[in-house]
Amino acid sequence: MPKSENFFIYGRNPVEEALQNRPNEVDKVFVKNNIKASTYQNINDLALENEVPLVKVPGAKIYNLVGKVNDQGFVAQLSAAKYTNFFNWVETLILSKNPAVLLLHGIEDPHNFGAILRSAAAAGIEAVIIPMQNQAPVNATVFKTSAGTAGRIPIIRVHNLNQGLKDLKATGFSIVGLDGNASQSLWEADLDRPIAFLIGSEGEGIHPENLKRCDSLIKIPMENNVESLNASVSAALVCYEWVRRK
Amino acid sequence: MPKSENFFIYGRNPVEEALQNRPNEVDKVFVKNNIKASTYQNINDLALENEVPLVKVPGAKIYNLVGKVNDQGFVAQLSAAKYTNFFNWVETLILSKNPAVLLLHGIEDPHNFGAILRSAAAAGIEAVIIPMQNQAPVNATVFKTSAGTAGRIPIIRVHNLNQGLKDLKATGFSIVGLDGNASQSLWEADLDRPIAFLIGSEGEGIHPENLKRCDSLIKIPMENNVESLNASVSAALVCYEWVRRK
Repeated sequence: MPKSENFFIYGRNPVEEALQNRPNEVDKVFVKNNIKASTYQNINDLALENEVPLVKVPGAKIYNLVGKVNDQGFVAQLSAAKYTNFFNWVETLILSKNPAVLLLHGIEDPHNFGAILRSAAAAGIEAVIIPMQNQAPVNATVFKTSAGTAGRIPIIRVHNLNQGLKDLKATGFSIVGLDGNASQSLWEADLDRPIAFLIGSEGEGIHPENLKRCDSLIKIPMENNVESLNASVSAALVCYEWVRRK
Repeated sequence: MPKSENFFIYGRNPVEEALQNRPNEVDKVFVKNNIKASTYQNINDLALENEVPLVKVPGAKIYNLVGKVNDQGFVAQLSAAKYTNFFNWVETLILSKNPAVLLLHGIEDPHNFGAILRSAAAAGIEAVIIPMQNQAPVNATVFKTSAGTAGRIPIIRVHNLNQGLKDLKATGFSIVGLDGNASQSLWEADLDRPIAFLIGSEGEGIHPENLKRCDSLIKIPMENNVESLNASVSAALVCYEWVRRK
């Protein structure tokens, strides 16, 4: 059940990045009218080249669009988050290559979510799957904190976590949950098959009833009585262990 | 040249954490006077037990101390960041165990810094070394975003990066710089010796003149044209690759 949403990105680099890498998703660019045109020649050229309207507006208009953020006077209105449809995506999959996906549940902090999308793209993870419930959507902050890399790999929205787990299992994925109480470490895990890594919320981890739905559980070893890692750090460690094994 | 600094931490859990794990560094606890004593029995007990004065104050006093933050009505005044002296620390080192340290330069975002301290503690890294110049100190936000784990391993301040590099090399550490243009990947690196991982700033990485001072350079492989990872993610990947090799 993919859904499109209008959203904005802000800041000079993220706007330029969007025009460069996915101009077909940019509806319009807003630039604060006291910024000298000579200082954003590249953004101007990219907008022209891709037939994206660029309008100069007062600061108050920028504020209306994105609120009090560090926009640096540049805002791009994106037409949609371009979520990918699960079943369309499945048709493009080559399961024999043992792909990996991240399945997120309860990542509400947009900074963590953005960092996870960035790490997943960098690691060459096949897709990031998010439920519509209990999970932040890909909004402007997420896009910005992903350093413009959100959208480099498919982002798939499923109705809820249960649906995601069911569809992934039916497709042939093993669900590997990240859990501090697991007996097996990340390094001992069998990753030589199609894998969906389930990452739970910052504070609570994976909900106990969802732990039961995993095919296996792994932990990241920790010393000095540290109880958990930042969610974006956990996700990156998992993604890169998968890369290392390849 | 270690230096002590007064600072505050805020939020119910961080305050409790500090009283639990390093009460000798807590000078005083402030609690907003409209919070029922029965809701913070444990904080009260810990303060009594450790002879830390606990005072009830109006919200305005809390605001004066820490500004507009999510303090939840709890603030602890710490006497000092308790930076460890480099040379005292060296005396406790067992070099034959091939310890690893993180040397940070230009990590200005307190959220990233906090996440790095958390990962370093979890990985059992020997110490985190920060220069006084071009590097955020351990302030209240850093402590909070480290989930209270800052201080579980020594944090050492050196005058500047150059001094840190010189002292580490003289002690017997190899300096391994993290650089996107390195030819060697993290997984190929020789980590079987005392290692200081140098992590540069979010935007710029390690300054070119400091790259030259490294004994070797490593990169984290990236796909999908992602140019860099979040600094806290890079640091965690490096720390945990070191753990894995052990």
